Order: sequence, then C-alpha cells, then structure tokens
Amino acid sequence: MKTIKTTDEFKALVEKIKAQPHYKDPIGFGIARVDMGQKNEDQVLQANFPLINWNENFGSAAIFMAALEASGETVATNESESVHSIDFNFINYALASFAPYVGEAFGDVHKNVQVIKTLQNLAIEAGIREGEYKVVFLFEDTKPCSVEAVYLKLYALSQAKVPLRGICLDGAFGVLPNVAWSGSTPIELEWLRENEIELKLSGSYPDITSVDKFPRFLQHIIPQDNTRILEASKVRMGAQLAAGTTVMPGASYINFNAGTTGAVMVEGRISSSAIVGKGSDVGGGASILGVLSGTNGNPVSIGENTLLGANSVCGIPLGDGCIIDAGLSILEGTKVHINEAAVKMIQAVNSGLVISEDGYYKGLTLAGMNGIHFRFDTIQNRLVATRSKREIVLNDELH
Amino acid sequence: MKTIKTTDEFKALVEKIKAQPHYKDPIGFGIARVDMGQKNEDQVLQANFPLINWNENFGSAAIFMAALEASGETVATNESESVHSIDFNFINYALASFAPYVGEAFGDVHKNVQVIKTLQNLAIEAGIREGEYKVVFLFEDTKPCSVEAVYLKLYALSQAKVPLRGICLDGAFGVLPNVAWSGSTPIELEWLRENEIELKLSGSYPDITSVDKFPRFLQHIIPQDNTRILEASKVRMGAQLAAGTTVMPGASYINFNAGTTGAVMVEGRISSSAIVGKGSDVGGGASILGVLSGTNGNPVSIGENTLLGANSVCGIPLGDGCIIDAGLSILEGTKVHINEAAVKMIQAVNSGLVISEDGYYKGLTLAGMNGIHFRFDTIQNRLVATRSKREIVLNDELH
Amino acid sequence: MKTIKTTDEFKALVEKIKAQPHYKDPIGFGIARVDMGQKNEDQVLQANFPLINWNENFGSAAIFMAALEASGETVATNESESVHSIDFNFINYALASFAPYVGEAFGDVHKNVQVIKTLQNLAIEAGIREGEYKVVFLFEDTKPCSVEAVYLKLYALSQAKVPLRGICLDGAFGVLPNVAWSGSTPIELEWLRENEIELKLSGSYPDITSVDKFPRFLQHIIPQDNTRILEASKVRMGAQLAAGTTVMPGASYINFNAGTTGAVMVEGRISSSAIVGKGSDVGGGASILGVLSGTNGNPVSIGENTLLGANSVCGIPLGDGCIIDAGLSILEGTKVHINEAAVKMIQAVNSGLVISEDGYYKGLTLAGMNGIHFRFDTIQNRLVATRSKREIVLNDELH
Repeated sequence: MKTIKTTDEFKALVEKIKAQPHYKDPIGFGIARVDMGQKNEDQVLQANFPLINWNENFGSAAIFMAALEASGETVATNESESVHSIDFNFINYALASFAPYVGEAFGDVHKNVQVIKTLQNLAIEAGIREGEYKVVFLFEDTKPCSVEAVYLKLYALSQAKVPLRGICLDGAFGVLPNVAWSGSTPIELEWLRENEIELKLSGSYPDITSVDKFPRFLQHIIPQDNTRILEASKVRMGAQLAAGTTVMPGASYINFNAGTTGAVMVEGRISSSAIVGKGSDVGGGASILGVLSGTNGNPVSIGENTLLGANSVCGIPLGDGCIIDAGLSILEGTKVHINEAAVKMIQAVNSGLVISEDGYYKGLTLAGMNGIHFRFDTIQNRLVATRSKREIVLNDELH
Repeated sequence: MKTIKTTDEFKALVEKIKAQPHYKDPIGFGIARVDMGQKNEDQVLQANFPLINWNENFGSAAIFMAALEASGETVATNESESVHSIDFNFINYALASFAPYVGEAFGDVHKNVQVIKTLQNLAIEAGIREGEYKVVFLFEDTKPCSVEAVYLKLYALSQAKVPLRGICLDGAFGVLPNVAWSGSTPIELEWLRENEIELKLSGSYPDITSVDKFPRFLQHIIPQDNTRILEASKVRMGAQLAAGTTVMPGASYINFNAGTTGAVMVEGRISSSAIVGKGSDVGGGASILGVLSGTNGNPVSIGENTLLGANSVCGIPLGDGCIIDAGLSILEGTKVHINEAAVKMIQAVNSGLVISEDGYYKGLTLAGMNGIHFRFDTIQNRLVATRSKREIVLNDELH
Repeated sequence: MKTIKTTDEFKALVEKIKAQPHYKDPIGFGIARVDMGQKNEDQVLQANFPLINWNENFGSAAIFMAALEASGETVATNESESVHSIDFNFINYALASFAPYVGEAFGDVHKNVQVIKTLQNLAIEAGIREGEYKVVFLFEDTKPCSVEAVYLKLYALSQAKVPLRGICLDGAFGVLPNVAWSGSTPIELEWLRENEIELKLSGSYPDITSVDKFPRFLQHIIPQDNTRILEASKVRMGAQLAAGTTVMPGASYINFNAGTTGAVMVEGRISSSAIVGKGSDVGGGASILGVLSGTNGNPVSIGENTLLGANSVCGIPLGDGCIIDAGLSILEGTKVHINEAAVKMIQAVNSGLVISEDGYYKGLTLAGMNGIHFRFDTIQNRLVATRSKREIVLNDELH
C-alpha cells in the first residue's frame, strides 16, 4: 500500500473499493477493543467502541474493508455482520490511506482517523494481542450473531443513532455471556470458581459489582452535560436518555431499548421498550410496564408533560399532559368512570373517544389519549378520569 | 508428624482421631482468611471462606482437629463453636496427613486439601500474619458467638447447604461489628474518624460503598451460570438464590435468610425470612413483608408460578398460581370479597376454605391457598378474589 | 511572624486581630483540599473538608484571616463568603501562632491545629500545588457563590451543625458543575469526551459510578457507630442522619436537606426538605413527597413513632404515633372519612380538629396531627382514619 497524498487520491481509492462487485455499504461499523475470557480465551466478554458509525462515513468503511482484504481477510458483505481481528497490516494500510487527513484529525474531526492513529500508537508502545482489537460491520438489521454486533447495536441505541425500538436485538440474550463485573471488567463465573480458593486466601478476590449479560450504560456512554444519572446500576447499556434527563437513585431503572426522548425526571421504572416524552415525570417508585410484564405485548409510550405519581403503575400508552395520581394502577383492563362533562372536555383534546353508556371506560380504550387525569374519587369511592389541568403542547413532529 | 503414605494409612489416622473421647463431628467447619481491625487489631471484621463443609468431609475435620492439638490448641468440642488461629505447624501437619491426596487435589476433588496446599504456598511466599487464617468448627446450631461462626452460617445459607430458616442466627447483629465497606474491604468507623484529617488532606480517603454489619452476597458467593444480580447491593450475604433467579436493580432487595427456591424474577423486596418458589415473579416495587414488618411474626412463603404485581404488598403466605394485581396490598387483616362461584372454583384447588356468610374473607384466612387472584373490582369498587387463570403445578415434594 | 510561646500570647494575638475594623466572626469556616478539572484546570469540582467550624473556634478563624493577610490576601468580610488559596506562608504563620497548642493537638482536641500540622507535613513531603488547598469563610447565610461554599454548607447539614432546612442553599445547582464520578473522584464530562478514543482503546476508561452535581454522603461523612447505610448511592451529600438510622438498599433514597432527627428505619424515599422523627419507620417503597413534588411547597415533617407502610405515599406532615397503611396515598387533597367516635379519640390527642358535617376530612386538614391511622376500609370500601394504637410520646421539646 503506498501512501495516499491528496484528498482526491483518497476519493479515487474509495471509489475504486466501492466499485468492487462484492462491496456493500454497511449500516453500521466500528473498531472495538474487546475483553476476552480469563478461562476461555476465545470467548469475547465485552466490546468497547471508542466510536461507532451508523449510516455514515462510508469512505472509512471502504478503507477498512480494503485494509482487511490486504491482510488476507474476506469481509462477508453477503452476511448480516462481519467481525475481524485487527493486525499491524490493517493499521498501516488504513493510515496510509488516511494520510491526507491525519494532520487535521483532532477534536470532532475525522474521528475514524483518530481511532487508527491511536491504535498505531498503542500498537507501537505495547504490541497488539491477537484478537484484542476488532473491526465490526453490520450489513443487515437482523438478529445479531456475535457479542461485537450486539454491542455495536447497543451503542447505536444509547448514542441515539437509531430511535428506541428501531433496531433488531432478537436473540441478544443468547449471544451475550453472563459474567461477573468488577466495575467495568467482565470476569467469567467459571474462572472465579476455579480460582476461588487462591483468590480468597490471598485476599485478591475481586470486588464484584454485578452479574449480568449486559454492562451498564455509564461503562460505555458519556451523557450530555445536563443529564444526570445518580447511580450507574440504574441504567442498562442499550437505554437511550435525551439531554436533560435525570435518573434518581431510589426505585428507578431504565432497561435497554427504553428511555426518554426529551428531558424527563425519572424516579421510577421504564421497562424494556417503554418510551417517555419531554417534560414528563416518572414519580418515585412509579412503574411503566414493559412488553413482557402486563401489557399484552403492546409497548408503552408516554407523551410529553405527563406525570406518573409516586408508586403509580402505568400499563397503557398515554398522550400529552396526562396525570396518574400517586398509588394508582392503570392497566389495559382497568375500568375508569368518566362523567359526561369530563368526557366532553377530554373529547376536545382527543379524537376517537366513543361515549360509553354506563360511564365506564377500559384502560385500553383510553390508550394514548391526551390530557387525562386518573384519580381515585374518595367520596364516590371509585376510579375516575377527568380532564387534567396540565398543558398539552401541540407538537407537530410528534403527533 | 510423619507423612501419611497411603489412603489406608489416612483412614486409620482419621479413625484414631475420631476414637478420642472428646472428639465430635462438627456440623460445619472451614478455614477462613479474616480481615482484622485497622485500629483494634484483635477485632475480626470479616471472614472469607474459600470453602465450607456442612455435615460432610469429617475426615478433613478430624485431621484439622488433630493438627490443632499438635500445635498445642484444644478444640472445644463441648461448646457450640471453636475458632483457632492457624500456624505453620498446623499446615505442615495437615499436609503430611493429606499426602496421599495432594497429587489429585484439583478442580472439584479434595477441596480441603487444595485449601491447605494453597495456604502452604502463600505462607512460604509471604509468611503468615498471626490471626490472619482461622479454622472454625460449629458443633451445635445455637446462637453464634464469634464473627467467624456467623460468617460460616451465612455461607451455609447462601451456598444452600442449609434451607432458608433452617439455621440459628439469633444474636448475629450483636456479634458483627458495624463497619464501613470500601468494596470488599471492611474499615472501622473509629479508624476513619481518627485518620479523617490526614486521609482527606492527602486525597486518600477511601471510597466507601456502604456502612453495615453484613457484607454483600457477591463479595463471598459465586452464583450459578444462569443467575443474574444486576446490582451487588441488592442481595445481602446470607440470602439464598436458586439457579436461574434474576435480581433487577430498580426497587429490589433480598435480605439475609430470605430468597428463592427456584428460578424467580425479582424486581421487588424479599424481606428477611421470606421465601419465593419456582417460576414466581416479584414485580417491580412489590414488597413481601418480613417477620419484623407487619406479618405478626409469621414468615411469608410464596409458592410456585405466583405473580406479585408491580407495587403490590404481600403480607400473607401464598400458594401456587396466585396473582396479586399491581398496586394492591394484601395483609393478614385485609378483607376480600369472594362470590359464590369463585369460592367453589377456589375450593376445587384447596382444602380448608370455609364459606363465609357475608362473602368477606380475611387475608389470614386465605393464607397459603393456591390459585387465588386478588383484584380490585372497579365497577363494584371493592377488593375481590377469584380463581386465577395461572397454572397450579402439583408438586408432591412441596405440597 | 514570630512563634507564639504561651496561650496568653495566643489570646492576645487573637484579640488584636479581632480588634481590626474590618474583622468579622465567620458563621462557618474550614480548610479544604479541592479537586480541580482535568480539562478546565481552574474549575473546582469538589471540596473535601477534613473539619468544618460552625459558629465556633473563632480564635482559629482569626489566625487564618491574619495568616492570609500576611500572605497579601484580603479576606472579604463584607461579602457573604471568601475563598483563598493556601501557600507555605499561610501554613507557617498559622503554625507559629498555634505553637502553644501543637504538642497537645491529638484526638478530639485542637482539630484546626491538627489540620495545619497535617498540611505542613504534606507540603514538606510533596509540595503544594497552586489552588489545591483552600480556606473558606462564610460571613452570611445567603446564596452560596462558590463550589467551596456550597460544600461547606452541605457539610454543616450532614454533620448536623445546622438543623435541616436551617441554611440557604438557593442556587447551589447553578454553582456545582455536573461531573462523572469514578468513586470519589470527579471527572469532567468534556474531558471524557475528548479522551474517549484513547481511554477506550487503551483499556483505561474509568469506571463511572454516577453523573451528578452532588457527591454521596459517604464520600465525605463518617456516620455514627450505630448508623447503617447499606448502599452509598442512597444518601446524597447534604442529607442529615441521626444516630441509629438505618437506610436499606431497596427503594430508599434520602436527598440533600432531608433526613432524620432520631433513629429511623428507612426503606423508602425522604425527598428534599422532608424530615422524619425518632422511632418512625419509612416502609419499603414508601414515598415522602418533597416541596417540588405534590405538596404545594409545604415541606413534610413526620413526627416520632410513626409508620409509613410499604408503598404508601405521604404528601402531608404527620404528628407522632401515626400510621399510613401499606399501599395508601395520603395527599393534601385526599378525602378521608372519620366517624364520630374516631373523631373524639383523635381530638383527645390533638387540638384544632374541627368536626366536619359530612364526616369527610381533607388530608391538609389533618396535617401534623398525632395518632391518626389511615386505612382503607374494605367493607365500606372507603378511605378512613381512626385513632392509631401507636403510642404518642409527649415530647415537650418538639410539641
């Protein structure tokens, strides 16, 4: 590989690579440092991506593919994903190709080039352990087959490169090994067992912070400046938090493929597949049910400026400006009374609410509606809904 | 002590030791590395057992007793427990006795021999600090008197060597010192106070993760491969988790002497003395009350395939296939209405339900029954019970 | 500065300093080691106080002011706070002044002298980095303007030098930077972003435990011997915990400017500004609302020997000996029925309860009353209040 001298030469090289019959633009790609098993040295436990690319930077993708092929590797562009170890040849090929950009690759500019430069420095200083660095390509959004591909997709979700529920993670639990985590370091349970006697007697048994297939969001993701996560265990990798979201450490939890699309105060649980909109408030201990827990497989979206009171449970989608009072549970089958006056006020901000003869409405009937206040009327002693006094922000983009 | 050459010689030695008048088989024993006080250097703060023996391996117990006596120690077989420091003589005596097994002591075989071999290596490399290693015997299951004995019993619970509620831990809170934990390292609060000025000004104040008498389960116990604990603080040492149990990090907690007897999804609280059966689900924020909190001292067992909905509270034992809907509290005194048809269906899967004239049943009356679904009827506006649609697995072993 | 020889000389020096026209006794002062930004090296991220003084030790304050002025600094006694870097001159001046006390400054005696001695040792060993050590004075309890002043006030709260709600923290969120915490070490998010590629590829990305403006209580405060905090994330710096308080790791949380005034079992949430009295019990998942969440700005105080049941929600102040049953929500607007007999029994232990004609009472009407038991009557199917059977401890100091 001779060194590329100009950006025009670089573009020509990229075009030449892309013209090859088996070439295909990846939907996502990136280079990761992987953690390998202590006992099963070929088992990937975790992939750490300093940068992922998602439907972007195809020039770098082309260079990486060519660099692999120059090292004798074949990129499986006809498969859904392709994962390859990186060696010195790969780094040298990529650096020679990126040469016109190396001088200006700082800060937010040419980040793939920065990755290669950093790799070269590390390789020169410390050598490269076989299999420590991987380049990962995704060509189709189907079931991920490798640990590296699962992580690439989790990064895509957590860095908001794809919307929540916008990517296929089927089978991820089968692909990821269950490991003990000592902070950011994954450790095989079997290795701990085999070494328990020596580790414990020598006082070097590791401090285990969790046992799970997934790492924590904060092990991999740097949040926005105005986002707060008061305890790392409360947000799983693969969650998505919009800027300004605050996650308190009481009873809260945000699972993977769940999260917020605007600044939200989170003091309760956002289960897998649930989404909460801007200005809403998930009160202390409130539960938003997930697709596996009581919603009949219907994922729950909560609109904007909606309040879930402390210890409430929400099993239906809600629109904007709703309130569930503290301690109430509103599930698909929950029956709520709405008087005539309230029905009219609710109809004024919603389409599609058909009047019920007996005045009772099932939770599922009210799914996704705006401006509903769920209350327990302690005089009539029944669950009622009225028009909430919360503002409904008409947001064309979302409605 | 001369080296034992054959397994027959070993057996003869064991028989000889056991024939001594004061000998007694221990119910539990093991060797621990202990953490001592930073200020009170004689105060044991924690005991780390690489292996415990529970009604098993009496040959090793006999050798350890003889090894102690060869070092001039007297094992108090007439007491409930006996704790002794280990020195080089002890190690040499034990190794000489175990000689026929040393060569094959690897993996899961002859683990007590592995402990002694490892101790010898550590002692040769680094010497033995007085009091760092202890051998601990339990002869009776009464109140534990030493930190080491409490830990041995907590290990017995957490490694499922004894069933939950199957061991005496009375007075354990009085025996264990309250310490600051920096990860797995216990630190005396008084030492922190005395050194606060220097630690803080020099930037070496330790990162304190908890202050408690008990350590965390994961500091000492390696879970099964399919068990997950997403946050270490959520399970106290002395809890017992059957394989396949998952503990989520939201509002969950499993106290000591509490846990699961089969694969359970835990997103709520299992208080001390509470037990949950296979296939059951403790929903997000659900609370199972403990003997000290609202159950009049009656410990709560939950059967198999039972669901505690999100933010529900359970203060009575439940059988198999029950449901408490999200947000409901069922305590001993809670009155629930059951209509005649439902009573018949519930009677079909339970014995002992006597018909109430007014249709109301106290929680305590329904304690331990199968197939009950606790719901809030939002038309009649009352708490009702019906026959749940959950399958009741008839399990001879358990019923 | 010549060395002071006697305590009389010391007192004379202090009087001379205090006689200066611009001198003023500070309400609080102390010396801190501060953590500075990795990227913005002038940004203070955290202040670590080995000792704070609050309306006390004015002699030390005078010496510190004089020491600063001897170094050419001007202490802004006419401002609400004044923060100054410490150099060798400061240390030498202070030590020379404290000379009569240096020999006896150990244990609990002369702690400001201990601070200076320790600083001198550290400075001699390792030098002093510009800006690493600060002396902080507060002259007025108004909005804090510096990170150092916010921390001094948080220490005053958490060390119970001032009562809860007894100090001005307005604007503290604006003053504190939002940072990533790796244990006790604050790290700028922007620095992480700039170094993400190198940190991740080299395997040295830090283990981030939270992202917040506030540190955790246990990073700075040593609790009493009988106080337990089972998970550090559950108590924010600025909370106040009376001796004997236990904080469980399930759904609990104690925010800053909130806490306990006696031994309390905490398994739920004590929101900012809420206070709980001796012998009370905040049940698993119970929520005490804060001024920003449903109490119309009225801070909630809970008296002594009061029980908040599991998953209950409390939005009104409660007196002594009250009970909210598991799962109930009592807010300002909640209507509760009280029958005539119960009203009389409640009036016997409270003044000011006016009889309602329809038998219904709003939560706000019952605010702060003693001996009330909030229950859901499952026969009448309504929320009721009765006279609780809990003892009401008449405590002159508090009532």
